Amino acid sequence: MLYLVHMVVDIPETVPADVAQETIAREKAYSQELQRGGEWAEIWRVVGEYANYSIFDVENHDRLHEILSGLPLYRWMTIKVTPLAKHGSSIR
Amino acid sequence: MLYLVHMVVDIPETVPADVAQETIAREKAYSQELQRGGEWAEIWRVVGEYANYSIFDVENHDRLHEILSGLPLYRWMTIKVTPLAKHGSSIR
Amino acid sequence: MLYLVHMVVDIPETVPADVAQETIAREKAYSQELQRGGEWAEIWRVVGEYANYSIFDVENHDRLHEILSGLPLYRWMTIKVTPLAKHGSSIR
Amino acid sequence: MLYLVHMVVDIPETVPADVAQETIAREKAYSQELQRGGEWAEIWRVVGEYANYSIFDVENHDRLHEILSGLPLYRWMTIKVTPLAKHGSSIR
Amino acid sequence: MLYLVHMVVDIPETVPADVAQETIAREKAYSQELQRGGEWAEIWRVVGEYANYSIFDVENHDRLHEILSGLPLYRWMTIKVTPLAKHGSSIR
Amino acid sequence: MLYLVHMVVDIPETVPADVAQETIAREKAYSQELQRGGEWAEIWRVVGEYANYSIFDVENHDRLHEILSGLPLYRWMTIKVTPLAKHGSSIR
Amino acid sequence: MLYLVHMVVDIPETVPADVAQETIAREKAYSQELQRGGEWAEIWRVVGEYANYSIFDVENHDRLHEILSGLPLYRWMTIKVTPLAKHGSSIR
Amino acid sequence: MLYLVHMVVDIPETVPADVAQETIAREKAYSQELQRGGEWAEIWRVVGEYANYSIFDVENHDRLHEILSGLPLYRWMTIKVTPLAKHGSSIR
Amino acid sequence: MLYLVHMVVDIPETVPADVAQETIAREKAYSQELQRGGEWAEIWRVVGEYANYSIFDVENHDRLHEILSGLPLYRWMTIKVTPLAKHGSSIR
Amino acid sequence: MLYLVHMVVDIPETVPADVAQETIAREKAYSQELQRGGEWAEIWRVVGEYANYSIFDVENHDRLHEILSGLPLYRWMTIKVTPLAKHGSSIR
Repeated sequence: MLYLVHMVVDIPETVPADVAQETIAREKAYSQELQRGGEWAEIWRVVGEYANYSIFDVENHDRLHEILSGLPLYRWMTIKVTPLAKHGSSIR
Repeated sequence: MLYLVHMVVDIPETVPADVAQETIAREKAYSQELQRGGEWAEIWRVVGEYANYSIFDVENHDRLHEILSGLPLYRWMTIKVTPLAKHGSSIR
Repeated sequence: MLYLVHMVVDIPETVPADVAQETIAREKAYSQELQRGGEWAEIWRVVGEYANYSIFDVENHDRLHEILSGLPLYRWMTIKVTPLAKHGSSIR
Repeated sequence: MLYLVHMVVDIPETVPADVAQETIAREKAYSQELQRGGEWAEIWRVVGEYANYSIFDVENHDRLHEILSGLPLYRWMTIKVTPLAKHGSSIR
Repeated sequence: MLYLVHMVVDIPETVPADVAQETIAREKAYSQELQRGGEWAEIWRVVGEYANYSIFDVENHDRLHEILSGLPLYRWMTIKVTPLAKHGSSIR
Repeated sequence: MLYLVHMVVDIPETVPADVAQETIAREKAYSQELQRGGEWAEIWRVVGEYANYSIFDVENHDRLHEILSGLPLYRWMTIKVTPLAKHGSSIR
Repeated sequence: MLYLVHMVVDIPETVPADVAQETIAREKAYSQELQRGGEWAEIWRVVGEYANYSIFDVENHDRLHEILSGLPLYRWMTIKVTPLAKHGSSIR
Repeated sequence: MLYLVHMVVDIPETVPADVAQETIAREKAYSQELQRGGEWAEIWRVVGEYANYSIFDVENHDRLHEILSGLPLYRWMTIKVTPLAKHGSSIR
Repeated sequence: MLYLVHMVVDIPETVPADVAQETIAREKAYSQELQRGGEWAEIWRVVGEYANYSIFDVENHDRLHEILSGLPLYRWMTIKVTPLAKHGSSIR
Repeated sequence: MLYLVHMVVDIPETVPADVAQETIAREKAYSQELQRGGEWAEIWRVVGEYANYSIFDVENHDRLHEILSGLPLYRWMTIKVTPLAKHGSSIR
């Protein structure tokens, strides 16, 4: 099943720079592993914002929450999930 | 270039049913032609809403506006366009 | 899978009273059939509003959209869908 | 009487990790005791968010406020309460 | 139990003036009967708006919804209900 | 003259617990004195929130601002004031 | 006492042009009479909008509501009232 | 002086097509005359919307309101005006 | 030219009390000097809020920005500027 | 291609004054270099706010994101990007 996920990152000023950098590095590795596994189908940068729109293709709600709540940057993110159905005009 | 486009359709009560149906049919054909041409890369239904999220892959802003303003349902739509850049974590 | 669904009904002034009443009657029958089938797990009235919060327990997004878009009052509704996951504190 | 309650948790960055963890543990025990007593009828995780939707079945407003204001995480929560009435289409 | 209720009235342009006036007259009688019965404890005009804030003192949610959905102007109102608990600083 | 006042309290994490408690105690005494004097006519807790709705009955705007800006918790409050007029349906 | 009042006018498409013009003319006369009487202290046009900000200097809330609800354009207006107190830095 | 102006056009369904077209044609001529005169410095289409952002360079507020309220489509527009000052980083 | 300016002050908890008091004192002096000079035409307190509505009468946008950005409390303020034109019904 | 970009700056209280000043100086140099290169076509101050509206003329989304995310003040900014198309009434 497909979900559109909007993630906004806001790392507090008080987080030490090295902690932030290390967390961002882990985030990237975590994301790429899920992309290679096919569950994180797409990730795009919102121009000018520390935010992304992503497409997830996972088995169910619980799996999506497991993935999202496991994000290294999760506690500093605001996330909004939109479930997507097949569109009647889609040629896929 | 990629754009995320959110379209909400609201056909006024006063539009005759046959006009609405005919317009919806033309919308579907219009969308599928652009999907086959590759510019309308994805279209998903937002669950429970007369709305979709779509990905467009077009040459520039003017071309996207030309496509969107040519939608048969355009005058009854509320559209929001978000430009998408490549994400540093993307494996594509 | 569970979804919280918020539905607000707004029947336009121009709809004849008998059409409205007949549609509302069909809505009730439609809802009760799905309740008996187990997919429409709960429906509550929001106090003071022509609105409800409902819990749906369906197989996937497509099935939920099929149910919601088939509501007799669908064209006069504003619907918002929230996917629900199991909560770590739940004793169920 | 039934209430839909939406709780969003936002633990400030300045709270020490052990204090946060201990409070979360107490929150879980507190919630489960009320679930077993029947007053906290349902709790669901909002996918991708540190938030839940819950159903409370309590005697009156004062009792609900007593329960909610007693939550160990209360001071770091944003809570919204919606009173629910019986719906005319409900088969319960 | 107490509830703060905010009601905004918006009578559509298409409603004939005599129907509007007759409905407003019935609304007043309906309100005053409930005020005399004690369930509609207070009603105040919001200055400059066709709106009121009211206090209801009723037995439960179902009774409040019964009262509000029975308002002659109900279909042209936007209503918001806030449940009120006893305040720890109140001297009542 | 009557005013509906909505107060939301948000004490910053950095305020020492004893300062917070002492201020809350002074707030309660301040409120009760004004209640006894008749100017703070009503105070109700919003269920589930560190907020209240109150009715003030004071001589004019300046007096209301004097009262509100003198609240011990004032600097940590978000306040919204709505002037109330007599309602044509009121039986008072 | 002083109030800042924001008025937005939206005359429905279905109002005949002569009715609209005649109402606007009466509105102007009504406003100017109150300006000459001193209760409507100021009126400014919001640039680019069919809206104004005004200052009223009236005896109490009831009088302000009487004035505003008597505006010829009242039923097509959205009005917001803000009570103003003396500012500690004012030299008046 | 410079102003950023955001205009959204929403022509009601009930306006006859020829009236709409004729008004749009007059709007274009009106806009181009002011562009040639230098007061309407820039006009850009918001991609996917019946809206524009424009820059006006006019003598004062009254002149801007005169221009905007004279737009043939004015009654069907929602307009927001933002005054612009010289920026300290500008090289102009 | 006239502008309506809305200022909301929010001094962070971390600002030492003496710095805050000294800045507030300078703010008052700054405001009164501009009031005496005629550019800060009016200042009113919003009842119950650490906010004001003011009328400025200045030569142009740049001068207004110079005044506002020079406010001693500027960095802790949220400011919104609305340009005001002459109203057709004004008797001034 | 053209983009309207709205930038709001909010430097946290905890940033040392010299760091803030040095960053602001680098921001200015960075902006002016891009202005001279033609990609940052316009920058205007929003009157009364620590914010600007800018026009960028760049080759594509990725380039715009590269520019914006490289802003020295980027981490303390809230940015909103609006893609602009040619307007049918433009004489350019």
